[in-house]
Amino acid sequence: MDGVSQPDQINPDAVKKFRSGKRSSHTTAELVDGILAGNRTLLSRAITLVESSLPAHRKQAQEVIAGCLEHLARIQDTCSPPFVGRGRGRGSEQHSASSIQHPASIRVGITGVPGVGKSTFIEALGKHLTGMGHKLAVLAIDPSSSRSKGSILGDKTRMEELSVDPNAFIRPSPSAGSLGGVARKTRETIILCEAAGFDVIFVETVGVGQSETAVHSMVDFFLLLMLAGAGDELQGIKRGIIEMADAIVINKADGDNIGKARLAMREYANALHLFPPPSGGWTPVVDTCSSRTKAGIGNVWNIIMQYRDAMSASGFFAQRRREQNRNVLYETIEEELRRNFYSRKEIAQAMVRAEKEIMEGRANPYEAALELIRKSGSHH
Amino acid sequence: MDGVSQPDQINPDAVKKFRSGKRSSHTTAELVDGILAGNRTLLSRAITLVESSLPAHRKQAQEVIAGCLEHLARIQDTCSPPFVGRGRGRGSEQHSASSIQHPASIRVGITGVPGVGKSTFIEALGKHLTGMGHKLAVLAIDPSSSRSKGSILGDKTRMEELSVDPNAFIRPSPSAGSLGGVARKTRETIILCEAAGFDVIFVETVGVGQSETAVHSMVDFFLLLMLAGAGDELQGIKRGIIEMADAIVINKADGDNIGKARLAMREYANALHLFPPPSGGWTPVVDTCSSRTKAGIGNVWNIIMQYRDAMSASGFFAQRRREQNRNVLYETIEEELRRNFYSRKEIAQAMVRAEKEIMEGRANPYEAALELIRKSGSHH
Repeated sequence: MDGVSQPDQINPDAVKKFRSGKRSSHTTAELVDGILAGNRTLLSRAITLVESSLPAHRKQAQEVIAGCLEHLARIQDTCSPPFVGRGRGRGSEQHSASSIQHPASIRVGITGVPGVGKSTFIEALGKHLTGMGHKLAVLAIDPSSSRSKGSILGDKTRMEELSVDPNAFIRPSPSAGSLGGVARKTRETIILCEAAGFDVIFVETVGVGQSETAVHSMVDFFLLLMLAGAGDELQGIKRGIIEMADAIVINKADGDNIGKARLAMREYANALHLFPPPSGGWTPVVDTCSSRTKAGIGNVWNIIMQYRDAMSASGFFAQRRREQNRNVLYETIEEELRRNFYSRKEIAQAMVRAEKEIMEGRANPYEAALELIRKSGSHH
Repeated sequence: MDGVSQPDQINPDAVKKFRSGKRSSHTTAELVDGILAGNRTLLSRAITLVESSLPAHRKQAQEVIAGCLEHLARIQDTCSPPFVGRGRGRGSEQHSASSIQHPASIRVGITGVPGVGKSTFIEALGKHLTGMGHKLAVLAIDPSSSRSKGSILGDKTRMEELSVDPNAFIRPSPSAGSLGGVARKTRETIILCEAAGFDVIFVETVGVGQSETAVHSMVDFFLLLMLAGAGDELQGIKRGIIEMADAIVINKADGDNIGKARLAMREYANALHLFPPPSGGWTPVVDTCSSRTKAGIGNVWNIIMQYRDAMSASGFFAQRRREQNRNVLYETIEEELRRNFYSRKEIAQAMVRAEKEIMEGRANPYEAALELIRKSGSHH
């Protein structure tokens, strides 16, 4: 029942997940070379490794990621950034001749409540970007609802045009698991996609739970989609999510809805003044768009480019990525600590006994945990 | 910036938190005896120990909790449950003469968006309960917003009557930390309060983020407060939260608002049919109330009692608690693994170096993490 209710811990199936398995039929070098050459089949294979919990797969995934990171560090140091001269927004000209180093990619988180039109928005903005020559990867975070435990939608079927666009790569959310696990896999998948030459990464939340904070922790820019409605516009979305937004975009601003959308835009813009000034000195922007008529879609991209330019110039862009990397340090350590503990045969057996005693009401989980820690010799 | 963006991990201040400290000035036996005698000062001291991250405090907190759990297991086995004859809801009569063992306490999670009137609702329902002879503890989970990092409201000032009621005990949320840490502390505080004789526990979420799932993982009954509004009633609240609710209560059903509230009630009741049938066989109930006029407040308690009676009879009540205990097993193990790792002096020093290298862009966090694990000897 509560399998996903501890967002931060391995669920009771953890022990099973750490059984051994075989490596991929491809060598690490084949996978890395394939990814760097833009081979989508090998990219997909590598993502499957990243998503696997089998120890041999995890180990090879780590090797592939290390290879990709090495490549990304190299191009970041030596190449002119792929962004220059493409998709520049208003206000970016002031930096175009300067020495500001632009990042080789931009990672955009996209969230909004169900019904806001995320898929059609991603399809419209995505086609706009591939039309400009960008290569776009669309990833999703869906730790699935706590009751149904199923994946909610097949991403590919929701984006008909993008799914057949040779410059777009759509990968559905890793299958159900703890939010921490799903976030780790998505974070690693971003690296693989960037190494494969995708210069724009969208990470979509399915908007059913706690995934917004996880997405915010892995992107450069966080976009909140909203709908114009009657009455109290801020009622529905939690304050914490509004505080994270770098832009709020009112979708479905078309037909009879245009007036309402403009009104909502002004209301949000006023409401944003109630929040503390954002870090990095960026003032969140509010705008409208229509995924159906495509009005305003190009301008959403302009806003993202303005952010990238201003935050690259101030150094905040790089700083934000490095703070995210610092979190990855902790995340990776803690995943390894869990893996090393649960994968030990004597612990796996003792866990089965402890769970049984707890489910029969015969053991106190606090004492059982400490006893297991003592048994493992981890305690000192 | 992203200090709380990994809900499941220790934040970068973790290393500092594990420095040693002194035990409480009270012995463990004094604390346990004081709690069992209902001494509020010693209860508060023990909660402070539970909330502390100092190793000596943690150790003593574990001892106090073990003492309280021992007592609770004893009364659960031998005493007639304190609930019998008090606060029974409609439909409970059928069990009153049966052999069903009622739990000695009920834990109720209460959530709703800001502005829904959680504090006045808790005050109204709380006064109703203390008037019936119940002893009520009100706890809160507030992992604080990711930007402001402050506690949002002082709970006591929000509940004027309850805060001076001798049969109520209000404890504000543990101060900012990871959601996992805050949840662990609240879970342990529930045990202390129950040992001190509080038979009704409210756990309130502040409704700003991811805390609903954490609260759901530690309560018997999850109550979602809503407001009647115009238009699409389900727009604002995430599907995952609606799926967790055992009851949806439309608050502020008073004055001109009564008609709208009744309409909203019917809409929610219809909408609930769209969700999968809940586990345990309980059909979520929708009702209205007014915290101002107190209309419907008593009936909210009746609904909770109906749930307790039906789910105790089916065995689901005890099963749900045991599944929660199984999660506590994992949570406690993983907290100990982190504590043992980060508290080692050579690791603490190496972490400082690794963080510095990452913040200067000179290290890959994945490799730095694995290197630290190798260094610790945790790897095998």
